[in-house]
Amino acid sequence: MSNPSLLILPGDGIGPEVMAEVRKIIDWYGAKRDLAFDVSEDLVGGAAYDKHGTPLHDDTMAKAQTVDAVLLGAVGGPKYDNLDFSVKPERGLLRLRKEMDLFANLRPAQCFDALADFSSLKKDVVAGLDIMIVRELTSGIYFGEPRGIIEEGNERVGINTQRYTESEIDRVARSAFELAMKRGKKLCSMEKANVMESGILWREVVTEVGKEYPEVELSHMYADAGAMQLCRWPKQFDVIVTDNLFGDLLSDAAAMLTGSLGMLPSASLGQPMENGRPKALYEPVHGSAPDIAGQGKANPIACILSFAMALRYSFDMGEEADRLEKAVEQVLADGKRTADLLGEEGVTPVSTSEMGDAVVAAL
Amino acid sequence: MSNPSLLILPGDGIGPEVMAEVRKIIDWYGAKRDLAFDVSEDLVGGAAYDKHGTPLHDDTMAKAQTVDAVLLGAVGGPKYDNLDFSVKPERGLLRLRKEMDLFANLRPAQCFDALADFSSLKKDVVAGLDIMIVRELTSGIYFGEPRGIIEEGNERVGINTQRYTESEIDRVARSAFELAMKRGKKLCSMEKANVMESGILWREVVTEVGKEYPEVELSHMYADAGAMQLCRWPKQFDVIVTDNLFGDLLSDAAAMLTGSLGMLPSASLGQPMENGRPKALYEPVHGSAPDIAGQGKANPIACILSFAMALRYSFDMGEEADRLEKAVEQVLADGKRTADLLGEEGVTPVSTSEMGDAVVAAL
Ligand SMILES: CC(C)[C@H](C(=O)O)[C@@H](O)C(=O)O
Ligand SMILES: CC(C)[C@H](C(=O)O)[C@@H](O)C(=O)O
Repeated sequence: MSNPSLLILPGDGIGPEVMAEVRKIIDWYGAKRDLAFDVSEDLVGGAAYDKHGTPLHDDTMAKAQTVDAVLLGAVGGPKYDNLDFSVKPERGLLRLRKEMDLFANLRPAQCFDALADFSSLKKDVVAGLDIMIVRELTSGIYFGEPRGIIEEGNERVGINTQRYTESEIDRVARSAFELAMKRGKKLCSMEKANVMESGILWREVVTEVGKEYPEVELSHMYADAGAMQLCRWPKQFDVIVTDNLFGDLLSDAAAMLTGSLGMLPSASLGQPMENGRPKALYEPVHGSAPDIAGQGKANPIACILSFAMALRYSFDMGEEADRLEKAVEQVLADGKRTADLLGEEGVTPVSTSEMGDAVVAAL
Repeated sequence: MSNPSLLILPGDGIGPEVMAEVRKIIDWYGAKRDLAFDVSEDLVGGAAYDKHGTPLHDDTMAKAQTVDAVLLGAVGGPKYDNLDFSVKPERGLLRLRKEMDLFANLRPAQCFDALADFSSLKKDVVAGLDIMIVRELTSGIYFGEPRGIIEEGNERVGINTQRYTESEIDRVARSAFELAMKRGKKLCSMEKANVMESGILWREVVTEVGKEYPEVELSHMYADAGAMQLCRWPKQFDVIVTDNLFGDLLSDAAAMLTGSLGMLPSASLGQPMENGRPKALYEPVHGSAPDIAGQGKANPIACILSFAMALRYSFDMGEEADRLEKAVEQVLADGKRTADLLGEEGVTPVSTSEMGDAVVAAL
């Protein structure tokens, strides 16, 4: 059997820096655990635009469709803010999600013990927090037609369309129920069924799928109440399932609340390929952070843990993923901290690459 | 000149209870400050549905159009959860907003000193917090057409439309800039211009209006980053302007973060009427709380402070509004607390009506 294949897309800002550290981890697995990956690398986002005039070249798109997993750093930056909508760095990422049909975006919001003090929330509210937000990623208002800015009367009108089919809701609900079965068996679905018909359909379909998972305790919450409850007492949740736009806001809020933003990975999963592995893209939750790019200040852990998610979800190597996650915890317990996590007494400041080295050493 | 007119719509759940306390305040102003209001009362939400089979009777709608201000308690409850979308309690509220054209929803997120400990956030993150979220309230995905659940192929599709015209964005932006001028002269506009064309138009129009307010420092943030920043360090904001749906989530999250949810009022303002007063509706941020309805546990302060907002924004009685707000602060400083705010040492538990009496006494 050939080696599992990885496509690495470092992207913009701190993307290349943090990805360089993931490379060290991948190399370690090849050398020490005999887990060799076929790694290729390419451009996405502003970096791709600079070279090709498009945030994702067709060849890169085609390559992404054939590999076992894509690892992405981050896209975007002020340099590209005034580009036309159709070639903005984000369009590269959105095209990958859409064309690979990565409908289930898994965003763990987890509070690392060593970092609970970094949360703006009180320690008892976040310590030990471990929830999973499953965000629908290929439909809804991100992709619905009609869309655009049109002339009407003598003014312009901005239009976007939220659109969800039963099968789109069904498949992401299933992913969420499956995850809930492996975790605390509690699932909360969030929408605005009191205001939006698409939310009514969402609630109906999730309820229907729920009948196949009688062991999972299913609840429903309006998304505004959900935002409130995440801020008030996030530990009430286990798995949350929601649509693309609500998921964007809610998962970012949840990630920030943990205080561990620079630590949080994500997985975006699609249908199984011929080899049984799901189409998959892994990326940190944080953005491209152009303000600190190139200074050795970025925290590579979110990106490293995204690779751990790849080990778990693409390659069924749960034990290896555990090993990597433990190594990260070890490094934190040892007091090593990148610039985003300084402030406490008695910790050791490290650069991006020193952090990567420390994780390798802990492995 | 005739007395200013008020239409009171207590609605459902704790609505009638908290509104009864506001009545005491209104009576006090009539008796002691010679500020008599012509008060009428009617039904909205589930209460209106029970009597008329509609969450807002046409006569009530017509009445709301002629008064100087509407005061609303809350709508909704589990009893009405399975009603058809078109007659759900929320439709009554949404019809009032839409037909009165109340485009600017002002939601202060303020942390009352005496209550800072109730926040899930660390005290230094919220103490002294005082921000104002201006939410567009009559357009966007709440009202855009087409909408509904249709059949397509052999499945159902849920559809809603986000739609913003330049003039809709322009007028709410103006309201926000005007408020910023009276406050800290900082305005942050939130949308998803990186993903939605309606967000691009939003950003353009707000920027354009901003040229008329050179003293106001204008910034833009993607709504997901906005959710994060509200959770991380809300004091960075002064006034925030955003669309109907983002405003729903962001203002609820912000309200919860203050720890003072039972204390927060809101104002929804429209165009000036012939007498120069804006069309206006005032309501607490909290909902109908059916679980505690009828038990004397509800906190009437949010509804009382909504009346204070009416004094300020509808009747230009800023000093009387200050007086009422001071009275509320006084009562809190005296240690009086309704059931939602218990837990500290040395406070005096009071019922809904005792709280109303205490505010009257403090006046
Ligand atoms: C970069 C942007 C297009 C993206 C999104 O809105 O989905 C990001 O915020 C995310 O959450 O992954
Ligand atoms: C009750 C509901 C329709 C309403 C909304 O979604 O606008 C409420 O959440 C609010 O924020 O006033």
